[in-house]
Amino acid sequence: MFNIDSYFQNSNDFMTISGPCSLESRDQLEAILKSCPQLNVIRAGIYKMRTNPDSFQGLGPKGLEIIDDLKKHYDFKFITEITDPRQIELLDQSVDIYQVGSRNMYNYDLLKELNKLGKPVLFKRAFSATVDEWINACGYMPDLGEDKIILCERGIRTFETSTRNTLDINSVIYLKQNYKFKVVVDPSHAAGIRSMVRPLCHVAMASGADGILVECHPNPQAALSDKAQQITPDELNIISSEMSKLANIYDKNLI
Amino acid sequence: MFNIDSYFQNSNDFMTISGPCSLESRDQLEAILKSCPQLNVIRAGIYKMRTNPDSFQGLGPKGLEIIDDLKKHYDFKFITEITDPRQIELLDQSVDIYQVGSRNMYNYDLLKELNKLGKPVLFKRAFSATVDEWINACGYMPDLGEDKIILCERGIRTFETSTRNTLDINSVIYLKQNYKFKVVVDPSHAAGIRSMVRPLCHVAMASGADGILVECHPNPQAALSDKAQQITPDELNIISSEMSKLANIYDKNLI
Amino acid sequence: MFNIDSYFQNSNDFMTISGPCSLESRDQLEAILKSCPQLNVIRAGIYKMRTNPDSFQGLGPKGLEIIDDLKKHYDFKFITEITDPRQIELLDQSVDIYQVGSRNMYNYDLLKELNKLGKPVLFKRAFSATVDEWINACGYMPDLGEDKIILCERGIRTFETSTRNTLDINSVIYLKQNYKFKVVVDPSHAAGIRSMVRPLCHVAMASGADGILVECHPNPQAALSDKAQQITPDELNIISSEMSKLANIYDKNLI
Amino acid sequence: MFNIDSYFQNSNDFMTISGPCSLESRDQLEAILKSCPQLNVIRAGIYKMRTNPDSFQGLGPKGLEIIDDLKKHYDFKFITEITDPRQIELLDQSVDIYQVGSRNMYNYDLLKELNKLGKPVLFKRAFSATVDEWINACGYMPDLGEDKIILCERGIRTFETSTRNTLDINSVIYLKQNYKFKVVVDPSHAAGIRSMVRPLCHVAMASGADGILVECHPNPQAALSDKAQQITPDELNIISSEMSKLANIYDKNLI
Repeated sequence: MFNIDSYFQNSNDFMTISGPCSLESRDQLEAILKSCPQLNVIRAGIYKMRTNPDSFQGLGPKGLEIIDDLKKHYDFKFITEITDPRQIELLDQSVDIYQVGSRNMYNYDLLKELNKLGKPVLFKRAFSATVDEWINACGYMPDLGEDKIILCERGIRTFETSTRNTLDINSVIYLKQNYKFKVVVDPSHAAGIRSMVRPLCHVAMASGADGILVECHPNPQAALSDKAQQITPDELNIISSEMSKLANIYDKNLI
Repeated sequence: MFNIDSYFQNSNDFMTISGPCSLESRDQLEAILKSCPQLNVIRAGIYKMRTNPDSFQGLGPKGLEIIDDLKKHYDFKFITEITDPRQIELLDQSVDIYQVGSRNMYNYDLLKELNKLGKPVLFKRAFSATVDEWINACGYMPDLGEDKIILCERGIRTFETSTRNTLDINSVIYLKQNYKFKVVVDPSHAAGIRSMVRPLCHVAMASGADGILVECHPNPQAALSDKAQQITPDELNIISSEMSKLANIYDKNLI
Repeated sequence: MFNIDSYFQNSNDFMTISGPCSLESRDQLEAILKSCPQLNVIRAGIYKMRTNPDSFQGLGPKGLEIIDDLKKHYDFKFITEITDPRQIELLDQSVDIYQVGSRNMYNYDLLKELNKLGKPVLFKRAFSATVDEWINACGYMPDLGEDKIILCERGIRTFETSTRNTLDINSVIYLKQNYKFKVVVDPSHAAGIRSMVRPLCHVAMASGADGILVECHPNPQAALSDKAQQITPDELNIISSEMSKLANIYDKNLI
Repeated sequence: MFNIDSYFQNSNDFMTISGPCSLESRDQLEAILKSCPQLNVIRAGIYKMRTNPDSFQGLGPKGLEIIDDLKKHYDFKFITEITDPRQIELLDQSVDIYQVGSRNMYNYDLLKELNKLGKPVLFKRAFSATVDEWINACGYMPDLGEDKIILCERGIRTFETSTRNTLDINSVIYLKQNYKFKVVVDPSHAAGIRSMVRPLCHVAMASGADGILVECHPNPQAALSDKAQQITPDELNIISSEMSKLANIYDKNLI
């Protein structure tokens, strides 16, 4: 069974985190679990941060029941985004790794609460944060530190409009050369274009990153959020298979 | 006595909001109140969002006692930043206008709570938010809307480094031409340089803005935060006097 | 008769430069000259830099004949953009002030040639240049220097898309506080929206700028370039009239 | 002997271009040629574009004599930057591929001249150009087109300051998925940090790029320009050796 602690201890582990942008139904997530048995870490949105207040805001508590139930049948760790300290009471039973999303990187009150909980945190860079600010914000979670924080580069905001964001691959390399934090890459948000996810996963490993976070949906066209960038479980399996060749070169252990 | 409701009703009112970045002591704020008797709206930080976790984080509850006490002797409305919904219980008695700071513009859970309270909100643009995202975020406070939200342009993040941020004066004009929201300008954060505050206040009025938010400290050199950009009460008085000449041309009522 | 040297000597002069984005015909420019008799400095594009190679590229030599002819009947100084040192031979007889456009700020070979000519240069900031780079580039025209270079802030490229560029009004103030260069503002390119030109002209004067550069066309809808941002001669006259009120406050001499 | 035409015809070729930022002496370049016999394409600056007019501006004509002489003893193609159409007369005899540098991407007059010459062009993206503008600018070289233009992504200007620029690896993938142009990556300028060049070369191949452009100097500490980012010939050889493993996976032919 997959142990998250060992990931923080092994510098050669390369972790694939995947799942739908928003958890929409039990069937949706189970389809992924069945198609991708190698997946150890599932990420799915329960409380969604949406730019438009009229967009789908997530299943909330019902979503957590689905997760708890699926955990009885499948072996996986669960990551979801927390957007408010008051959600902890509900989330904490089901969540193995908390995600702090890009819009909450500066939400220091939230970070202080997560620091108290002691669980690992997937800490996304704000799309306009400098690397220095990102590292400074980690200072609000001193008890987690380099042993329990996974930095996630998900693209920054620039003048370029042909892609959703600009993946700052420089920052991944810079972080690996200057800090001991785990660093993963989110190609889905970085590009916002389905066909670009595959090469960007390769780029992530070539850069020295410690993993990827990829949005996956059994039927992306019907997704309630991030339609244009989610890939299918089949595509994820192709990527995993390709990554294993690269992993040989880089002496990485795929998990 | 100054009535905040009338500000939202009168399109010609130009409001000056001022006070120290952080409330540091009773004496500090009283010095400003004494020197600037024309000031109707005081802003002072009680809970500070600091990039560096080791920086001064604000006085917290003690600060509110100071505010309550000073309100007995001076006539002013009080604005302070809220960074966590759990602060409402403490803040609500003393606060007349809530400030949502730049780092919390995307904190939709916080916005939903403020929407319930019904008090006016000074809503700062995130330093990397597009105007569209800013307006969309207002949608999380539908009960406040254009009648109770004051948008505050405080500079955006760009490649330029000679000033702290880049004041997006275009956006102020764009907003006034396309929406009915009140829009104020924060020259202190926009420039981050004391000597630039004065001309930027002029720019604000010339652009058609509805007010300015200026950081002021009786002894800026000794300030616990934002040292380089706070002006003295005397400088604020000079600015106010200059603004009154401009106000004649633009048919504005200074408050 | 207007003397450009005196502009560089008088710190209180505020210059209005106007004319069509592209010179399209004799009638087009004469319409402006007739409607705006107060205009001393006409700018019109002869050789155009167009992003799309299939767009109108300017009248070239025929345009210069029009200028020479109109100068016999109207009293004005002429500014046009130079994009290649090899144009000097043709341009030099008709041109009073050379414009270096945003895309050529880094064209140091061109700057060195202009330095030799000794005529004043309207030097536009590249839309992605820092203020430091802009000032450094002036170093390629050491014989012109602060006595013959007019810096023109025309908006920088940022993530914001509701306006064509982001006018960096901070930089205008910063330059006036730290250098002796003349600085003018181009609200037409900075906003790219006709209705925003008027308030941005006010902003320019309030900031301490030494002038404005405004695109003007007798029939903007029919313009061969920059349709959305050119204003009519009537609108320019309204702006001039408003500016004269502001000029009183700022003790500026409108030219 | 290496044939540049075949590079444009073979979609699997991955080209390494290297050489010093500025050609400083015969010995300097010969040291690289001797240490790196596999190098087919040498790039060295003859006329330098320097932000600061007092910095070293390149050897000029003397540099070309060095190139011509070295070509008698070593087999390589030569790339150098052209910054002014008037340099063609001198450069054309020695140059196999013209480089248009980042600051000249919008210099359409220069592009039109290169179009006439018919030689391949290494066309660097302006550090603030959108992909669309870059592609549009290629329209000024219609006779070269996808058969003779090599696009070079060298990092864009963003708010991030921990690296010199932000490599836009998204754009490389986007270009390869939407156009037939060759695309190479310049990790030296993209990062501006020597130690990051190696992983960025891996990233380039993983992204699907058609080559790399790497600054190399026998003694980087003593370089007259770009000191911080040039690597030694030995480091280049290590990178080449690593790339050959990756080339197997991606079925690339290293040239």
